[in-house]
Amino acid sequence: MTNQTGIKAFVFDVFGTVVDWRSGVAREARPFLNRYAPALDAFDFADAWRREYSPAMEEVRSGRRPYVRLDVLHRENLVKVLTHYGIVGAAESEIDELNLAWHRLDPWPDSVEALRRMKREFIIAPLSNGNIRLMVDMAKRAGLPWDAILGAEVVRAYKPSPQVYSETADMLGLAPAEVCLVAAHNGDLAAARRCGLATAFVARPTEHGPHQQTDLKAEQAWEFVVGDLNELADEPGCCR
Amino acid sequence: MTNQTGIKAFVFDVFGTVVDWRSGVAREARPFLNRYAPALDAFDFADAWRREYSPAMEEVRSGRRPYVRLDVLHRENLVKVLTHYGIVGAAESEIDELNLAWHRLDPWPDSVEALRRMKREFIIAPLSNGNIRLMVDMAKRAGLPWDAILGAEVVRAYKPSPQVYSETADMLGLAPAEVCLVAAHNGDLAAARRCGLATAFVARPTEHGPHQQTDLKAEQAWEFVVGDLNELADEPGCCR
Repeated sequence: MTNQTGIKAFVFDVFGTVVDWRSGVAREARPFLNRYAPALDAFDFADAWRREYSPAMEEVRSGRRPYVRLDVLHRENLVKVLTHYGIVGAAESEIDELNLAWHRLDPWPDSVEALRRMKREFIIAPLSNGNIRLMVDMAKRAGLPWDAILGAEVVRAYKPSPQVYSETADMLGLAPAEVCLVAAHNGDLAAARRCGLATAFVARPTEHGPHQQTDLKAEQAWEFVVGDLNELADEPGCCR
Repeated sequence: MTNQTGIKAFVFDVFGTVVDWRSGVAREARPFLNRYAPALDAFDFADAWRREYSPAMEEVRSGRRPYVRLDVLHRENLVKVLTHYGIVGAAESEIDELNLAWHRLDPWPDSVEALRRMKREFIIAPLSNGNIRLMVDMAKRAGLPWDAILGAEVVRAYKPSPQVYSETADMLGLAPAEVCLVAAHNGDLAAARRCGLATAFVARPTEHGPHQQTDLKAEQAWEFVVGDLNELADEPGCCR
């Protein structure tokens, strides 16, 4: 990565790419499950909650539902998952509190250092489907040094809808090719590339746990393919 | 200021409140004026440029014009000011470059320290009419440690239109009274109060130069009235 690439800003997928959502949600869910479903595996619970994520956003992407922020979708999905597992008796306030699990995810070990390095040379921002408050709470807790909070809520649309990528570049006053999306997901990168953005794949082979089958490797010739975010910052000419 | 006030986020007017736009624009304009109008006072030039600011935004506020970001309005206003002064011969690229003066403003001496202190206890963000890229460039250059970039471009409207205040609180997942606008301008605070926000007046008696006549003191009983931003951070119970 060098400034000769013409890249001025790196924007990041967050869930799975910058933070480990599965471990974080499982950790946050454990005390709740101890009260209501002590035999339930907290990672299974996290996986079940996450399985509702894309279908819920698809209602918005398809136009069947106006944009609502991810906190709202997460809350609705959580109720579905509780119903699925037959968990009853939790107070609304307990469900609200558990819904904040997504605000309290830990970064992968390389994320904070790499973001600090990249921030010296580039604009860095999340380009996440997470809403603004979620991203702010996560960043304050984890020390993610974003220059701005961009993404779905600012554009009022969910990735991989093209306007999320295109309007984000426009808001940064940049041509699409001057913006690089960093993601652990080939599908997200493919959508960004169709909008003209540069792309960086970072392998996160345990995002979905020890038996992950998807996104183990780059499926296209992305501009950058790295094993972690420090490797991206290490690219020649980048970050002192 | 204590957490007992219920305030969770402080949002800031920026031009005049956090940064000294007049000195910064004059400093950035001087080399340009040396080439095209060496006898022209750079502060007069800055004042003339700023006089076009509110009328240009009023076109958007009134609905006569769709939202366009402040960089665009600043550029149009600059051309008007050059015409007014009879300045001809500047290349488009020179005008573009001068337009970035607003991205390169220095903070008032108390701003960075106070924001760092307040950030430990509260969400802090600009609530400015400046666009996202302008705010990002300014923050990176000056070390303003914002948690997010909020304001006009995110809402696609200009202060003092009420939705700028109301939608910002909503995006933060907060009730209006949990958000405090900090501004050196009584009119901005009045508009925020009408939307239910808390308000903090900071005196910036030289924003408009040594002969300033407006906003020298608080014109209503704002929740906080301070002489600089460290005084705000000093309020009992606030910022360690």
